[in-house]
Amino acid sequence: MKPIASIRLFCPATVANVACGFDVLGLCLTSVGDEMLIRKVQQKGVKITKITGQKLPLEVTKNVAGVAALALLEAIDTDYGFEIEIYKNIKPGSGIGSSAASAAGAVFGINALLGYPFNKQELTVFAMQGEKLASGTAHADNVAPALFGGFTLVRNNDSIDVISLPSPIALWIVILHPQITIKTAEARAILPKEITLQTATKQWANVGAFVSALYKEDYNLLSKSLVDYVATPFRSKNIPYYNELETIALSNNALGFGISGSGPSMFAMAKGKADALKIQAALSKKYSETTITFNCFISKINPEGIKIL
Amino acid sequence: MKPIASIRLFCPATVANVACGFDVLGLCLTSVGDEMLIRKVQQKGVKITKITGQKLPLEVTKNVAGVAALALLEAIDTDYGFEIEIYKNIKPGSGIGSSAASAAGAVFGINALLGYPFNKQELTVFAMQGEKLASGTAHADNVAPALFGGFTLVRNNDSIDVISLPSPIALWIVILHPQITIKTAEARAILPKEITLQTATKQWANVGAFVSALYKEDYNLLSKSLVDYVATPFRSKNIPYYNELETIALSNNALGFGISGSGPSMFAMAKGKADALKIQAALSKKYSETTITFNCFISKINPEGIKIL
Repeated sequence: MKPIASIRLFCPATVANVACGFDVLGLCLTSVGDEMLIRKVQQKGVKITKITGQKLPLEVTKNVAGVAALALLEAIDTDYGFEIEIYKNIKPGSGIGSSAASAAGAVFGINALLGYPFNKQELTVFAMQGEKLASGTAHADNVAPALFGGFTLVRNNDSIDVISLPSPIALWIVILHPQITIKTAEARAILPKEITLQTATKQWANVGAFVSALYKEDYNLLSKSLVDYVATPFRSKNIPYYNELETIALSNNALGFGISGSGPSMFAMAKGKADALKIQAALSKKYSETTITFNCFISKINPEGIKIL
Repeated sequence: MKPIASIRLFCPATVANVACGFDVLGLCLTSVGDEMLIRKVQQKGVKITKITGQKLPLEVTKNVAGVAALALLEAIDTDYGFEIEIYKNIKPGSGIGSSAASAAGAVFGINALLGYPFNKQELTVFAMQGEKLASGTAHADNVAPALFGGFTLVRNNDSIDVISLPSPIALWIVILHPQITIKTAEARAILPKEITLQTATKQWANVGAFVSALYKEDYNLLSKSLVDYVATPFRSKNIPYYNELETIALSNNALGFGISGSGPSMFAMAKGKADALKIQAALSKKYSETTITFNCFISKINPEGIKIL
């Protein structure tokens, strides 16, 4: 069908559960992301016309981008429909927001083609429906940084509330992805339902300190507060050599080290590109000495999120 | 004994457990505080020579100021001793940092008379020994804002780490003190030892949001994040008319309402003096209709903490 208009997007990878910020803190990457092409067409509804790079369902209700797009279209009266092409570069199940990139990209693109009827807070809620399909829970910790860019904090009391935090430009992220399978739903299931008030208190002191460190660009405080008492102690057991990798990263000047999302990818945070490269080399060396297939890359923090190409 | 030097201090009242910031967030007040006079003398050791305003022990090891002073003097070689006079204006047991004012004042004053050998982080640790005497736990949530002023966040992993947060000048605090007795130790005992991970997550999202709101001077976000899921639901039951007072405060433009420390005092936060006065009048009216003896005052946030007079 001949499109009325079309848009091409870069939909970046993201890191959720940034250390102390379990379920609330995310960040957006620059160097890896999907591309999406979205066309506005006469025929109503949503069609996924092409997916390259990964085997993913073209059926709209079984595809995270499709489900997110439908959620948006349910909230607005429009005479148009949309065709979506997805060029996957982010591996599903890698823990760097593959489903979020598709879900957020779909709603971002359709919103742009409709003349921006929704703000990013609203787009977050639509995109979360895609996440619900992917992992069983409608979480915003990846779609928020994909849509807003930079560091985001998601408040969720009665409704979703995304807060954009500063992203000091000196910060670099190293991503290490061991190609093993960890399902988000299973990674959730191994967490305890309850934690001690004492542990919780330490965790929220670190969340407050981390947010303050971003505003002050205080890298010492940032480093001290990049600790997770809640999920990492449990989830790290399923990631090969986790503790050794953490030690290697920290001994190579990493400000912090943790699991990206629910894994298996890990992230290290560094001040400056030189340290990021050093950490990348050291982490890669460790996995090279094992039988684990992996990839490892560095990235700046992406201040703008999804971008029109 | 003839003093070698002396110092006169204003030791302000403080609010701990600021809503979402259970055990970590505190703030310093301007309008109420103790005065202390500390003399450097030839005879080694610490003497408390005078206390007015309240019946409190003059015996050094039974007095929070004495214990804090001794903790400092154990950490330094000095040929001098110190005499302390305390003019109490903050009622012990009111929940606005009475013991913290004395403990922090003692170490602040002695440090000044010794030529500032210790920084405020170190003074916090000494002053906490006074808090340990007062409540059984060496907590920093009142001594930190008394020493640093403004809003403070206390990280406590391996060691105490106080972070000064911005204090938007438009903020006012209303304190309502019903003259009933709540022991800090008992207020601790009624808290659950464990909380759900879900509740904890909501709480640390709010801590992060609150810190961000202070930096951005975003009063809407500040207000939304001033919620406590952890202590207030339990402790408020022991404070007469708590829920009604909260409703009254919020319907008179309070940004938030909560228990100060472990109570019985409550605080409301307001933007601007006019709203603070309105809230003060409305809260006072409510308690005036009951048999409860109370006092209610307003205060700006004190950016400097303990002050040399």
